[in-house]
Amino acid sequence: MPKVSDDHLAARRSQILDGARRCFAEYGYEGATVRRLEEATSLSRGAIFHHFKDKDGLFLALARDDARRMADVAAEQGLVQVMRDMLAAPDQFDWLGTRLEIARRLKTDAEFRAGWSERSVELQDAVLSRLERQKSAGRLRDDVPTAVLLGYLDLVMDGLVTRIASGQGTENLSAVLDLVEESVRRDRP
Amino acid sequence: MPKVSDDHLAARRSQILDGARRCFAEYGYEGATVRRLEEATSLSRGAIFHHFKDKDGLFLALARDDARRMADVAAEQGLVQVMRDMLAAPDQFDWLGTRLEIARRLKTDAEFRAGWSERSVELQDAVLSRLERQKSAGRLRDDVPTAVLLGYLDLVMDGLVTRIASGQGTENLSAVLDLVEESVRRDRP
Repeated sequence: MPKVSDDHLAARRSQILDGARRCFAEYGYEGATVRRLEEATSLSRGAIFHHFKDKDGLFLALARDDARRMADVAAEQGLVQVMRDMLAAPDQFDWLGTRLEIARRLKTDAEFRAGWSERSVELQDAVLSRLERQKSAGRLRDDVPTAVLLGYLDLVMDGLVTRIASGQGTENLSAVLDLVEESVRRDRP
Repeated sequence: MPKVSDDHLAARRSQILDGARRCFAEYGYEGATVRRLEEATSLSRGAIFHHFKDKDGLFLALARDDARRMADVAAEQGLVQVMRDMLAAPDQFDWLGTRLEIARRLKTDAEFRAGWSERSVELQDAVLSRLERQKSAGRLRDDVPTAVLLGYLDLVMDGLVTRIASGQGTENLSAVLDLVEESVRRDRP
């Protein structure tokens, strides 16, 4: 019964990812030991690492899942909407704090960096093609290259992740995102 | 001779800070052990912690020094110029990677968070008063509250620190900063 088996595998995979997400959020990347991952997932290390090569693999799979969900929103409503969603439910993005912890590794570990950038290709593509559509529709400013607008939105996104991950105040940020949105549009209102 | 003694103290203090900055940049916050701080400063732990209460104290003093230098630039030329300077010499801001590592602590450790926000009061004030001056001079847009413009520039700054700290590409970022600068101005060019 390959179908049942596939369902089972998918359910197990998502059980592991949910537990790992909570575990990373609570203890951080370094603090999420194998023992704690076992507790959080209610599974043995054998079961966990049957599905994922190692802790890095688990981490990158989570990042990929997030990126995919963000890509869905970004494709329809743009990256600013993704940011508004994050702002509305910052606690769901608790685990993103680990993104900051891994900054040193991104800098020094080429293999890890490659895995990390791969995860975001889909999101980048979604954002880029929406920007192109908006530009064709005359809603986007055309005096700045699309690559620069993309870089701008990415930079603001990095700032927002940092802000949420460090639990700093988010007051005014909704109005700030209005400004960001407007600054890529064709005309100021 | 109190003057000589003061000079000596200041020189010693700056010797410690320079070494600590290199040490944090190379090993990260956790990796900057007392032994490595001794090596980097060529001083004993006794000498180091005569000047600074503990590693946190050293870290916050570095952050304060940076904030002060940035405040000087920001007061005259604005926060976007501070960002342009960072972009021009990212290696001088290597140690900022530690800012990301401490995000979890900022979230969970109230005392540390208080020390951290204190460091940036001077920079915030400098940026705010320049924004106010620019607004009076009619160079700043007046359809958005100054607090929102400040929050916007802060958010972009957080993004830039994250980008530099994780060694990600900085291509396009100069044009992105042009866009940021323009978006707080009165009129698009």
